[in-house]
Amino acid sequence: VASPGQLLLLLRDGKPRTRADLSTATGLSRSTVRARLDALLLAGLVSEGDSGVSTGGRPADLFVFNTRARVVLTAEVGATHAVVALNDLSGTPVSVQRLSLDIATGPEVVLTRLVQQWHDLLEESGIAPNLVAGVGIGLPGPVEHASGRPNNPPIMPGWNGYDVPARIRIDFDVPVLVDNEVNLMALGEHSAAYADMDHLILVKIATGIGAGMISNGRLHRGAVGAAGDLGHIRAHRASDTPCSCGNTGCLEAIAGGSAIAATLRSNGLDAQTNSDIVGLVRDGNVVAGQVLREAGRDIGDVLAACVNMFNPALIVISGSLAQAGELLLAGIRESIYRRSLPLATENLRIVHSKTGDQAGIIGAATMVVQQILEPSTVDRLLV
Amino acid sequence: VASPGQLLLLLRDGKPRTRADLSTATGLSRSTVRARLDALLLAGLVSEGDSGVSTGGRPADLFVFNTRARVVLTAEVGATHAVVALNDLSGTPVSVQRLSLDIATGPEVVLTRLVQQWHDLLEESGIAPNLVAGVGIGLPGPVEHASGRPNNPPIMPGWNGYDVPARIRIDFDVPVLVDNEVNLMALGEHSAAYADMDHLILVKIATGIGAGMISNGRLHRGAVGAAGDLGHIRAHRASDTPCSCGNTGCLEAIAGGSAIAATLRSNGLDAQTNSDIVGLVRDGNVVAGQVLREAGRDIGDVLAACVNMFNPALIVISGSLAQAGELLLAGIRESIYRRSLPLATENLRIVHSKTGDQAGIIGAATMVVQQILEPSTVDRLLV
Repeated sequence: VASPGQLLLLLRDGKPRTRADLSTATGLSRSTVRARLDALLLAGLVSEGDSGVSTGGRPADLFVFNTRARVVLTAEVGATHAVVALNDLSGTPVSVQRLSLDIATGPEVVLTRLVQQWHDLLEESGIAPNLVAGVGIGLPGPVEHASGRPNNPPIMPGWNGYDVPARIRIDFDVPVLVDNEVNLMALGEHSAAYADMDHLILVKIATGIGAGMISNGRLHRGAVGAAGDLGHIRAHRASDTPCSCGNTGCLEAIAGGSAIAATLRSNGLDAQTNSDIVGLVRDGNVVAGQVLREAGRDIGDVLAACVNMFNPALIVISGSLAQAGELLLAGIRESIYRRSLPLATENLRIVHSKTGDQAGIIGAATMVVQQILEPSTVDRLLV
Repeated sequence: VASPGQLLLLLRDGKPRTRADLSTATGLSRSTVRARLDALLLAGLVSEGDSGVSTGGRPADLFVFNTRARVVLTAEVGATHAVVALNDLSGTPVSVQRLSLDIATGPEVVLTRLVQQWHDLLEESGIAPNLVAGVGIGLPGPVEHASGRPNNPPIMPGWNGYDVPARIRIDFDVPVLVDNEVNLMALGEHSAAYADMDHLILVKIATGIGAGMISNGRLHRGAVGAAGDLGHIRAHRASDTPCSCGNTGCLEAIAGGSAIAATLRSNGLDAQTNSDIVGLVRDGNVVAGQVLREAGRDIGDVLAACVNMFNPALIVISGSLAQAGELLLAGIRESIYRRSLPLATENLRIVHSKTGDQAGIIGAATMVVQQILEPSTVDRLLV
């Protein structure tokens, strides 16, 4: 039996429908559909339009999910920057701002910056704060998703165990959900570009190297929210290079942004940041291109094992170094196709991200919307 | 609103309940609970008993899931043997038979053997064939789960694309589900011993090395049913050893049963089969113990990457070589704890299987029961 929440779930695909369409799709009587639509219209979650199509009498009314009924506040926080946004109920960003910040200044300072920025975006957009339906935040470390507390994050001093939702709810008293930013990038890319794919891996290649995974259409967070830690898997290319994690020979220590920049400097090139690396490669510097491709091979060696184990339909390459173009991808593909079994790679696609640097905020909004528009939640709200 | 199927889902935990319990748990009126129970009683899926407890009047009736209402035919087929069984609707085996067979004789021969054995077991148990509710089969290769057809299985000549369900339905016209046997072992171990764990990996170590994974409480099969292919991940211990897959340096080529037996023979020991290896280790042969522990370290090196990527709460070690005892596990633990991040291993447990060689048939039954007792399926049947 389709409740109002389940009727809304149907409409959330964005397609306008008549009462007759909804009656056919749900098996509900016209009068029940009418009553449930009335509740959704009253809550503003559905809007009504004229189809313009008449079958003899007056045109049938069309009903459509009103994605602008509420707004979701989102942020993807990195080590030195954040993307802060307002998203609509389809997850689409409607207003986006980039900030420079330092994650190491701790949760009080960083979260206060986010709150201030959200207030500014709401004001600029003329959206009343009482239209905020939820908050979604991505952080650059493992997060205990159920509580929204960072879980021993290596690059986030002062954040371990901090109650992020409690801090945000002082300003916005709505559901606040927190997750690892790479998980949210995977969720965002999946929901915005590959919603029909059950199994995918998104790999973020920047200063660090991490992954987010979708299994059976759902985010795979792992037992303590630590899944996708690609960067600290031992690389195949033998190396004693020390890693920030305290171990040696980790993938990140030889193929992450800092390692690539160091290799370029040892070749007499001026490379301090990931942008410098991308700039050199894009300018056609041969050494930089070779080093990047070699990093791609190292990453591909580790990903080949993940392909054997996880058997994804798609690997999405993202992060600031992915902007350097095809050489990184070429190296990754080379290793994966050399090492993985034919069955696991024959239909495997390895592509650049479609959502780019908006993946994280789209994922943050998707996470929030999945919870607040869950049918039973909607039903409770409408009673 | 709880349908009869959802009422049954509640009762499937095995706990007896009164009408009052069910009314409280579902929010349904007593009279609705009564009507739905009547339908389930009529179908034989629920049975009724006397609680013996009176609250003044006559004792309240107790209702319990009747796991013996129907039977599921199951088989776990390996390269040279099969476990064939009848299971009840809780997944528990009620009658088990071991067979020797050769998977390479092809699907017609092998499946006819299984069908014959199921008929024999039914007859011996005095169970009428019309009580068979479904069939679940595990095969030693990748399977396209939706169609039940093996998908390019390397050690199963003649099976590629073969319609296994169609063959079985000639004899038993019921739902027939097929999957990779290691997937089913993971499902069986999960449902019988760790149903509350969301993320686990089961590793089968025998002639081949493979894994089955549970993600978010569900089996992770991967895009083409090839997930869990641990054996053909490149081992960390540098090796040019050729592998049956056509590549070199695969984990299976240095740490699988054949590789271990070859190493033991090169040390002058008489080891042809996995039983020989287990026998030598159990008899306290020092060289055999060392070789097995070293294989454990190699397996652990690859599993360490899987732990970083998948972050399971539990790794279950299974398969014929696991019977050699603690040395294999010691080697595995050693590598995993050396290489994985503290966060991913602090609560990680690495244990022997609890369901042993019944894991596959329990998983096969669980797969079938999940489908045939799915609430909407039950509701359709009861109409």
